[in-house]
Amino acid sequence: MGLADDTKTKQVIIVRTDVEMGKGKLATQVAHAAINAYRKTRQQHPRTVSRWVEEGEKKIVLRVDGLNELMELKAVADKEKIPNVLIRDAGLTQLEPGTITCLGIGPWDSEVLDRLFGHLRLL
Amino acid sequence: MGLADDTKTKQVIIVRTDVEMGKGKLATQVAHAAINAYRKTRQQHPRTVSRWVEEGEKKIVLRVDGLNELMELKAVADKEKIPNVLIRDAGLTQLEPGTITCLGIGPWDSEVLDRLFGHLRLL
Repeated sequence: MGLADDTKTKQVIIVRTDVEMGKGKLATQVAHAAINAYRKTRQQHPRTVSRWVEEGEKKIVLRVDGLNELMELKAVADKEKIPNVLIRDAGLTQLEPGTITCLGIGPWDSEVLDRLFGHLRLL
Repeated sequence: MGLADDTKTKQVIIVRTDVEMGKGKLATQVAHAAINAYRKTRQQHPRTVSRWVEEGEKKIVLRVDGLNELMELKAVADKEKIPNVLIRDAGLTQLEPGTITCLGIGPWDSEVLDRLFGHLRLL
């Protein structure tokens, strides 16, 4: 995950690759996750979010192969008290209504995120 | 663009398909556009954004084949005074620094957006 830059914060979005989505659908789900995790984190940790905005709003999209792994990663974020949101598809197109597609986390301290989620592959 | 639902507002993100991006990169750029257009619209038209959140934050990702067309669509949004943001890639990976990748618009009245941008193809 670590790119060569000086930012201290980032947002992580973790996507299920076992749910088949076209690239437009995928991008929409990631955008839902990004906005909702941003809003949740801003309410609870406004200074972290301000810093992230000042740094240029780095985002990383990672992948998991299934729902169980995604829920385990959500539990990890919850245990560390990192604001996060699960995204469920409205199901108007492509997917069954309520299908969990991805997890948005933070923005949060990059070192913490790397320690917890740095083993995951980039999408 | 019109899906069979009852929402009155949506957000539109228009992506350049002539810029080669992997699907993770693409999703990241769309998420940048979504958050930044959301923030800009919220500052100027908070009630529109509140309504959009209540309606479930519908987003649509559309495509254009090049920068000229994207800039023409930005001019259309500007002329109609619809808040919008161009997204430039930081260029740490894949793209040249400063490459314009997409345009985020609104959230805004769906009928207006359909009239202005409904001729574009879904990504």
